[in-house]
Amino acid sequence: MQPSLNKGTLQRMDSEERFQEQPFGCLQQKQPHCCHPLEETSSRVGLHATLPWTMRSCEDGSAHLGSCGEAAAFRSREEALSTRSYPSPVSLRGADLLLDQLYGLLQCLFNIGALQRLATPCLEALEANTRNCESRQEKYFTPLMLVRAFKRLDAVYRLSSRSFAPPSRNECRNLLNLAQIFASRQRLRLLTLDGDETLYPNGENFCHEEMGRNIAQLLRKGVAVAVVTGAGYGYEAEKYAVRLGILLTIFAQERLPPKATRRFFLMGGESNYLLRLSSSLKLEPVPEELWRGYRPPIEAADCERLLDVSERSLVLLSKDLGLEGNVIRKQRAVGLVPRDDATNKVRFGCVDNKGMHKESLEEGVMRVRRDIRAAFGGDCPVPYSVFTGGCDIWVDAGNKAEGVALLQGLLKLKPEHCLHVGDQFDLVGNDLAARICSPTLWIRNPKETAAVIWELLQADSENEEESSP
Amino acid sequence: MQPSLNKGTLQRMDSEERFQEQPFGCLQQKQPHCCHPLEETSSRVGLHATLPWTMRSCEDGSAHLGSCGEAAAFRSREEALSTRSYPSPVSLRGADLLLDQLYGLLQCLFNIGALQRLATPCLEALEANTRNCESRQEKYFTPLMLVRAFKRLDAVYRLSSRSFAPPSRNECRNLLNLAQIFASRQRLRLLTLDGDETLYPNGENFCHEEMGRNIAQLLRKGVAVAVVTGAGYGYEAEKYAVRLGILLTIFAQERLPPKATRRFFLMGGESNYLLRLSSSLKLEPVPEELWRGYRPPIEAADCERLLDVSERSLVLLSKDLGLEGNVIRKQRAVGLVPRDDATNKVRFGCVDNKGMHKESLEEGVMRVRRDIRAAFGGDCPVPYSVFTGGCDIWVDAGNKAEGVALLQGLLKLKPEHCLHVGDQFDLVGNDLAARICSPTLWIRNPKETAAVIWELLQADSENEEESSP
Amino acid sequence: MQPSLNKGTLQRMDSEERFQEQPFGCLQQKQPHCCHPLEETSSRVGLHATLPWTMRSCEDGSAHLGSCGEAAAFRSREEALSTRSYPSPVSLRGADLLLDQLYGLLQCLFNIGALQRLATPCLEALEANTRNCESRQEKYFTPLMLVRAFKRLDAVYRLSSRSFAPPSRNECRNLLNLAQIFASRQRLRLLTLDGDETLYPNGENFCHEEMGRNIAQLLRKGVAVAVVTGAGYGYEAEKYAVRLGILLTIFAQERLPPKATRRFFLMGGESNYLLRLSSSLKLEPVPEELWRGYRPPIEAADCERLLDVSERSLVLLSKDLGLEGNVIRKQRAVGLVPRDDATNKVRFGCVDNKGMHKESLEEGVMRVRRDIRAAFGGDCPVPYSVFTGGCDIWVDAGNKAEGVALLQGLLKLKPEHCLHVGDQFDLVGNDLAARICSPTLWIRNPKETAAVIWELLQADSENEEESSP
Amino acid sequence: MQPSLNKGTLQRMDSEERFQEQPFGCLQQKQPHCCHPLEETSSRVGLHATLPWTMRSCEDGSAHLGSCGEAAAFRSREEALSTRSYPSPVSLRGADLLLDQLYGLLQCLFNIGALQRLATPCLEALEANTRNCESRQEKYFTPLMLVRAFKRLDAVYRLSSRSFAPPSRNECRNLLNLAQIFASRQRLRLLTLDGDETLYPNGENFCHEEMGRNIAQLLRKGVAVAVVTGAGYGYEAEKYAVRLGILLTIFAQERLPPKATRRFFLMGGESNYLLRLSSSLKLEPVPEELWRGYRPPIEAADCERLLDVSERSLVLLSKDLGLEGNVIRKQRAVGLVPRDDATNKVRFGCVDNKGMHKESLEEGVMRVRRDIRAAFGGDCPVPYSVFTGGCDIWVDAGNKAEGVALLQGLLKLKPEHCLHVGDQFDLVGNDLAARICSPTLWIRNPKETAAVIWELLQADSENEEESSP
Repeated sequence: MQPSLNKGTLQRMDSEERFQEQPFGCLQQKQPHCCHPLEETSSRVGLHATLPWTMRSCEDGSAHLGSCGEAAAFRSREEALSTRSYPSPVSLRGADLLLDQLYGLLQCLFNIGALQRLATPCLEALEANTRNCESRQEKYFTPLMLVRAFKRLDAVYRLSSRSFAPPSRNECRNLLNLAQIFASRQRLRLLTLDGDETLYPNGENFCHEEMGRNIAQLLRKGVAVAVVTGAGYGYEAEKYAVRLGILLTIFAQERLPPKATRRFFLMGGESNYLLRLSSSLKLEPVPEELWRGYRPPIEAADCERLLDVSERSLVLLSKDLGLEGNVIRKQRAVGLVPRDDATNKVRFGCVDNKGMHKESLEEGVMRVRRDIRAAFGGDCPVPYSVFTGGCDIWVDAGNKAEGVALLQGLLKLKPEHCLHVGDQFDLVGNDLAARICSPTLWIRNPKETAAVIWELLQADSENEEESSP
Repeated sequence: MQPSLNKGTLQRMDSEERFQEQPFGCLQQKQPHCCHPLEETSSRVGLHATLPWTMRSCEDGSAHLGSCGEAAAFRSREEALSTRSYPSPVSLRGADLLLDQLYGLLQCLFNIGALQRLATPCLEALEANTRNCESRQEKYFTPLMLVRAFKRLDAVYRLSSRSFAPPSRNECRNLLNLAQIFASRQRLRLLTLDGDETLYPNGENFCHEEMGRNIAQLLRKGVAVAVVTGAGYGYEAEKYAVRLGILLTIFAQERLPPKATRRFFLMGGESNYLLRLSSSLKLEPVPEELWRGYRPPIEAADCERLLDVSERSLVLLSKDLGLEGNVIRKQRAVGLVPRDDATNKVRFGCVDNKGMHKESLEEGVMRVRRDIRAAFGGDCPVPYSVFTGGCDIWVDAGNKAEGVALLQGLLKLKPEHCLHVGDQFDLVGNDLAARICSPTLWIRNPKETAAVIWELLQADSENEEESSP
Repeated sequence: MQPSLNKGTLQRMDSEERFQEQPFGCLQQKQPHCCHPLEETSSRVGLHATLPWTMRSCEDGSAHLGSCGEAAAFRSREEALSTRSYPSPVSLRGADLLLDQLYGLLQCLFNIGALQRLATPCLEALEANTRNCESRQEKYFTPLMLVRAFKRLDAVYRLSSRSFAPPSRNECRNLLNLAQIFASRQRLRLLTLDGDETLYPNGENFCHEEMGRNIAQLLRKGVAVAVVTGAGYGYEAEKYAVRLGILLTIFAQERLPPKATRRFFLMGGESNYLLRLSSSLKLEPVPEELWRGYRPPIEAADCERLLDVSERSLVLLSKDLGLEGNVIRKQRAVGLVPRDDATNKVRFGCVDNKGMHKESLEEGVMRVRRDIRAAFGGDCPVPYSVFTGGCDIWVDAGNKAEGVALLQGLLKLKPEHCLHVGDQFDLVGNDLAARICSPTLWIRNPKETAAVIWELLQADSENEEESSP
Repeated sequence: MQPSLNKGTLQRMDSEERFQEQPFGCLQQKQPHCCHPLEETSSRVGLHATLPWTMRSCEDGSAHLGSCGEAAAFRSREEALSTRSYPSPVSLRGADLLLDQLYGLLQCLFNIGALQRLATPCLEALEANTRNCESRQEKYFTPLMLVRAFKRLDAVYRLSSRSFAPPSRNECRNLLNLAQIFASRQRLRLLTLDGDETLYPNGENFCHEEMGRNIAQLLRKGVAVAVVTGAGYGYEAEKYAVRLGILLTIFAQERLPPKATRRFFLMGGESNYLLRLSSSLKLEPVPEELWRGYRPPIEAADCERLLDVSERSLVLLSKDLGLEGNVIRKQRAVGLVPRDDATNKVRFGCVDNKGMHKESLEEGVMRVRRDIRAAFGGDCPVPYSVFTGGCDIWVDAGNKAEGVALLQGLLKLKPEHCLHVGDQFDLVGNDLAARICSPTLWIRNPKETAAVIWELLQADSENEEESSP
């Protein structure tokens, strides 16, 4: 990769390219953690420079997931829970509120038989709400192109010609996703992707060839792609590579130029281990001094204490809730995982999730969070994430808000140029935290991710044809 | 088992055993369709002898799925739809109402923190409601042992020690299932099982070895087992055998006595083709004169007209709803199925169900029903079923209410000795109709069916230990 | 009253005027009850000639209050009740459904902050629904001018500039009322008014001078005005006159011409006693042979039996529900009324309604209805009405559907030229039945009635100024 | 009033009597505002000594109306409003949550037909929740005797024998009230009463003779009674006396001893003007130095600024919302009140509340609150209250939390010995704030207040008979 002598070339050469031209070392010196590139946008998005810590201390923002984060979401949630009401789905601002409004609106129009006639003007009103983010408390990093997304999906779903089956919540989720894609794909510089159930089926390895080729295409076009996963294998690159399955082979087949391969990152353990693909297609650790500076140091003792508290909590709840699994302690995580022989047992009422009952896992997640808060108060010195991956419970010393923000710091990108794709946006999931610092897409399985990535590549051509009429 | 010369031997020698001692021929003569064995229980369960036709004509019973059936459910549903409200879930009496009440009750107790203390007395009250069916309009063929089921499931789910995650609707579904199993397993004479997604994964063949052995065990113990499936291959036994996969092999390995193998039936096309397993483990057609007498004759022309109307409707909606599939006409069914190349196309928003959008399928089912009603009025001369199997829409000239009732007629069994297991109990499913003439279990996948069958075998032993304290 | 020699004078001279030109006698001969003037409109409004009996026998129309009536509403209601759900408010078609849709729509638009921009196009869609009544099952006798009503009320309520207080259900009720007034006032030939809490405060006499003058004005303009009240004093005109308070005095002051005074009617006992104001301002019975012919004869014995059953029911429930009152038997009604000393007792929890607890009265109404149905089946030979007036329960052998329809028959008017105003449109009220054969306005107190009547007089002038911009 | 020489006489001679023996002056010296008698109970009830200011600064307790107050309620409310959802009723902890739980519970038991059998054990569970207040976040000053209250009201309402009409929210409100009365009447030392619509009909004067005699009885028995009203006439005693109507006359007729008359207080302007009844039955100002010490001084300039901001806000919204009234500025309040000729105008859709549209008043209250917060931030230096009395909007520099707390300070009483009765506990009412420092009863009209006071006097006798079985 040759240095771009010509400063003002392409607009999309901006942040990431500049980053790559500089040796890491100077970055570190020039970028103490108070100079996070988000700082300049902080007034707009309500974030302070050192984002994850800000997140932990935003005392006021009970339910603002747009501006605070997991901790705040949980606190607000806890308030609801202390009244034992536990509403589902959680009423969070931003994306969740918008989903509710969209669903309510389309149902209402369907009920009066006016979806065809009125969907466009009504969605224009909602779209306007996402545009002037200043004026309202919901924060959107980009406006959402709802009208255009509706037109496109209506051609698939035939919403406006249906008369029995009303618009479903799931259709609204896809509508929001597409509206975000339309808004993001032109300006996209960083695509972050969850691993399990997003890139590959839960517990399996990447195997979707077409998606692989399209990811390569994104890299080639200058978009950085990072897997941001809870899975933490330290810096054992080989283990991560196994999960990536045929993806690296596809990159090789596609003969990606070194500049493109080096745009591929993997952040393991939520926000703990950052690796980068070398030009020889090896995952190599990014020296911590290059990116850890974007957050204040964490005391090892605090981290140990967090994991100690969590481990005790997991052991206790495993017994109390009959979640028969093993507690595993890692360097920066502790988890309750199913036993190997879990699936062999026939047990009425609990045949899925390797014998780990879903509702009990949810109860477990909430209990660990309660115990951590009880031990540390509202202001835990270590950012963390407690979630269930479907058949387990994990406590990570780190979270995806931090994981994505560190990448943004490293690559000098603002939230509006980023996009996080994941499947875990409910209360007990770990993708939710990413909403703090990035637009997000809520997908349900790797097939949907494949469709998302295909769609992201369509940007230019489709835009023209759609804007013509 | 030798023929019982002595008439009054065992109570459980009743219906099915008697049937087997008689040559089929005389049965036919003695059993014109007005003599359906259900007749004597009709006052109790609100059914008349020729059940499926009764079902079609029970004009009064708008929402009583307990006492009428698909047609009525749809009519009642249509009423709701004409107001465009389309509530989900449908408010049906009987099982669905009970599920709602159970869910509401447990949520309420959870919210006041009194689940542990009050679940038992409250469930006793609900259980009492299922016992004196006369006094209320909801019909239950058996009382439901809710208290005992709650105790058992609480040991798995720890409902009463949870404080964050309230009882879920899914847990309540399992609770109802177990309460029905406890009530049914002692008196069980006929177990009817749906095929796809109940016995085997959707579109695949039977492969669950343990479940296979347990089905063999049920047959050995004197329970008749019948697959009642929408899949209709006429009398081409081989095609059905393929779907049954390793099941017949297991029967061979288990060395089932001929008497036991002959207790295994398969009803194809909902209620159109009845086959029986021979002692040499071959599926053989049961002569139609032996069981078709339990319903009045259907004119071939009526059937053709039904399928003509439906085919036109399917062709139209395929176009109008963008459901790109092929319309297939069979002898007694017509369906809209996905094209072979359906899965290859990436299409944002519609990546599952082989490209057949779920909500569009639901809309399609409702439209076909509307068109049939428009053509025949409320009183179609052919019993039928319109449903979606997940990625298709089928119209069958026949339905599971009829399918189960014909078996009951053939085997001379009352509903309380039967049990139907299926996964399609929502408004657009075909198992719903079976509720008219049988207790039912609503399962979600073959693993749950396996657990159900294992549980049905536990009858004797467990009962003792549980009743001791 | 001089015969109008000039046949084709005014359009509004139509029905009522023609009626007045004919001697009553011949009417009777020419109008057997199969020739009810509604007949010609029956296909449009789903009514048969002999309306009240049709109402009793419309077996299919469970929840269609637009096309059937009290009996059907109760049956549908009972179905709901047998499941013990008792939703409130009752989900009835027509006006109630529209109220729900309107409320849902405006709330939804308010929530997305787009009420100002989108109220008009959305209400246009709803208004269109009321126009093409054929295409849907809801029946409206006239289209409802929702857009115009919204504009007018928005100027009062400032709905579209509010940002905290969303549109309320009460505002939507007024909106529907005004939309109906705009639709009706140009074509109005018959205004029927409930008595208690509509014309005068509950139990008191008419005292609203301005409303009195405006009623006189309506009469003068050619609109027939009829009080249709549950209160039944036989033909004791003096007792009715007491309730009318200063109204007749005002008529005298206003020097109404005889033609106008004779347009004033009073139907007592729901549909049992018809009186007419003479030119000397006396209420005089209208000979029964002139209007009773519009319904088939009722056997006195049936009526007695209805009242016997009801009386027994009232006595029983009075005891069982602790409603300490007196049972009063009249010629065509039986009621449970509070004792004279009722108000003197301080009783915690029950200080209003003269000691008759509201919810117990509602329970009582439903019990009497159940007992009547149990005694007569779904097809009682006597039209009836069971309702609570606020502190009592009454069973009348007659109802307001019949009361209004008899007037329509006598005056030869179609529903679209009529309007019924009342305060009792909930499930236990007696105005609800009037919806079967007339557009209705749901008001809450005599002040609202006064505003309605004032508004009805504004027809011409206002219309111009409003249509100009 | 003679000094009580005998120190240890009666237990009920405690706080108030002791206070009366001391000259006011020394009180002031011994009681700087940090020594508020609430202080010792503060850990239990979550209140700090200087209550009203605490209230303003309880940053954490967004929705805890039990522990914070109007300001917090409004803030929490605002959060909801900023999302434009405006749920109604507001989800507040404590009494409102309990009302919701109670209603949900009774409905649920009714629906399964088990109210009779299960009401008692279920209410025992709820009652236990109110007892161990420590363990949960809801704060109750006393346990609530729900079981006993249910038994008593069931005898009136016949809830457990009803089968059509389910328990209503209104019945649950009365149930909570009675449960609080049973808990409070034995320990009652201070009864505070709202004025309009609580003691006397809105805008009228006290006229309920029986209630008057019973209030006299309470005073005689040693209970202090204070009218705590928003109405502020400074220290113009005569104006307050007019509103008290026949009450003082009744006191004279009842020949109350001086000690008893001096237990009667009136706090005007929420918490601004304290008057006391002299032994000669005159309302006399209590010197401010005796009770104002219980709160920190308010700067006159701050107060003026608050009223300036509010006045501007009222003027603006009057115009913007079409609330045609006059803005009135008082010493410590500013209000928007209807014009004198308001009632004379017929205006469709707005005939009640003297032409002030209810929803517009609610909108107005929320707007003034928003403007005050915008001007002062979350920490206004002057305690205030913005509310609507039904046909007006008032901003008072003071509120009922402060008003009740000052009386508690003066009389040295803990919250558990107090009880506040009012009709304005919804979001836009001024009684809501009293919940911060006192158990409360939510009544609907003066008749209910009369029943409450009668019930409070029954304490001793009834207790015995009820506890015997």
